Amino acid sequence: MASQSDRTATIIDGKAIAQTIRSEIADEVRQLSQKYGKVPGLAVVIVGSRKDSQSYVAMKRKACAEVGIKSFDVNLPEEVPESDLIGKVHELNANLDVHGILVQLPLPKHINEEKVLSEISLEKDVDGFHPLNIGKLAMKGREPLFEPCTPKGCLELLFRSGVSIKGKNAVVVGRSNIVGLPVSLLLLKADATVSIVHSRTPDPERLVREADIVIAAAGQAMMIKGSWIKPGAAVIDVGTNAIDDPTKKSGYRLVGDVDFEEASKVAGWITPVPGGVGPMTVAMLLRNTLDGAKRVIEK
Amino acid sequence: MASQSDRTATIIDGKAIAQTIRSEIADEVRQLSQKYGKVPGLAVVIVGSRKDSQSYVAMKRKACAEVGIKSFDVNLPEEVPESDLIGKVHELNANLDVHGILVQLPLPKHINEEKVLSEISLEKDVDGFHPLNIGKLAMKGREPLFEPCTPKGCLELLFRSGVSIKGKNAVVVGRSNIVGLPVSLLLLKADATVSIVHSRTPDPERLVREADIVIAAAGQAMMIKGSWIKPGAAVIDVGTNAIDDPTKKSGYRLVGDVDFEEASKVAGWITPVPGGVGPMTVAMLLRNTLDGAKRVIEK
Repeated sequence: MASQSDRTATIIDGKAIAQTIRSEIADEVRQLSQKYGKVPGLAVVIVGSRKDSQSYVAMKRKACAEVGIKSFDVNLPEEVPESDLIGKVHELNANLDVHGILVQLPLPKHINEEKVLSEISLEKDVDGFHPLNIGKLAMKGREPLFEPCTPKGCLELLFRSGVSIKGKNAVVVGRSNIVGLPVSLLLLKADATVSIVHSRTPDPERLVREADIVIAAAGQAMMIKGSWIKPGAAVIDVGTNAIDDPTKKSGYRLVGDVDFEEASKVAGWITPVPGGVGPMTVAMLLRNTLDGAKRVIEK
Repeated sequence: MASQSDRTATIIDGKAIAQTIRSEIADEVRQLSQKYGKVPGLAVVIVGSRKDSQSYVAMKRKACAEVGIKSFDVNLPEEVPESDLIGKVHELNANLDVHGILVQLPLPKHINEEKVLSEISLEKDVDGFHPLNIGKLAMKGREPLFEPCTPKGCLELLFRSGVSIKGKNAVVVGRSNIVGLPVSLLLLKADATVSIVHSRTPDPERLVREADIVIAAAGQAMMIKGSWIKPGAAVIDVGTNAIDDPTKKSGYRLVGDVDFEEASKVAGWITPVPGGVGPMTVAMLLRNTLDGAKRVIEK
């Protein structure tokens, strides 16, 4: 670790911020329950037994329980026919106690992900990945029902750390449908000047060097060097990459897309990996589920 | 005008390129008609009697006639109730001879534009402004049924002038739903590194100076100076601004968002105003109508 004296950056503690948000959500769920006798419900659907998917799903279900959101657990076998999965989605669409539906990805190869996701009712698309939600996210004067969780979490980290966005120069590294693209659209709506660099950009450092805000979402271990960071910049690292580390029992450790050791000596704010953006994704999923439930219950 | 000797830029002749495209479309319409006995149909709906709208609509209808697209003319009075307009849209949605529906904007104040536009069948949204189309335009791996006409025209001008986009540094000035935002998304899909600058960007020239491709769509007369342009850059000027000119009979002349005189001495390619992007918008509307018709007729 960089010694305290070398370090210029305020570490953005995603775990602590996510915990604060989860407390806020728990309060609101309690109020909703007291006033209307109803609680938000989130259906978490998993197909098959991938270990990583199972651990994500377990984490999401546990997080629901902690804030008082009712979790509807749907566990389907690896070989479930696509039509059965879609039937299940329709059933959840019709269930008035379910306010959000999350289908854990990836799905087995015999199932068309795009088709399944498009069957989720727009009002319950808490992942915010429906193209209609993305279109409204992109367009001025339109608001999506839900913003995608990880991008929303990135902006929330900036807001809660007192980093202003309006008029700032933001550079997003990566253009995935899940993070890079939607976070770019959110930053643009928040009046940042936005540049998007990606795998076809010959010189990503050129734009990163001038960024007041860097969102790293390329999935490349430590590709962003300390020398690329503008002094005082806010650096949000979405990457979670496993690299070999013989000093660890497991033989590996997790690192971000940013070289944290170097960058924390230059940046103004920086998120660690793990413990930065990661915990925010689940917190935003809970937030979206609560917001979806409020739209229905308070109506 | 800059003398030939000062000028470095190849002038991109939008009028000539649009004419070539219209000939290509006319050929395809003829083939479609010969093979299937059917022609594409475009409904152009105008409400009220704004002079500018009437002249745009007349131009579009005339362009249809020239390439053999059947134009369905709907002229409604200024005071038409919203419900009647929507009824008309539904009627056109159901009409099998209509493959594209265009409602000329702006609509009178008592009518909700967003609501009316959202009633147009996705398969006939030749303007490409439906949020679902914009969402699919934004997302990797998804394709919209129609790309918005002016942005599509900008890229077509680059393609047909031999300007490569992949890996290039593109800067879009302006972030409107109609031009700036969708053209940014198209450039990103074409593998450019994309920066979007806008009215809240304190120093637009910083990014423009490094752009290999500039798309100017800010609606600010000659805001982009020659000194901002990187030598050899391709400059596509979407702006059409009227400025006072006492030497003209009309008292005004049209200029773009780029100072053409200055920029044409530095750029590698540049579009004039008028005669650059303008003619392409109508050509792309015809292209979209033809493509929509082919999807139905060839099915």
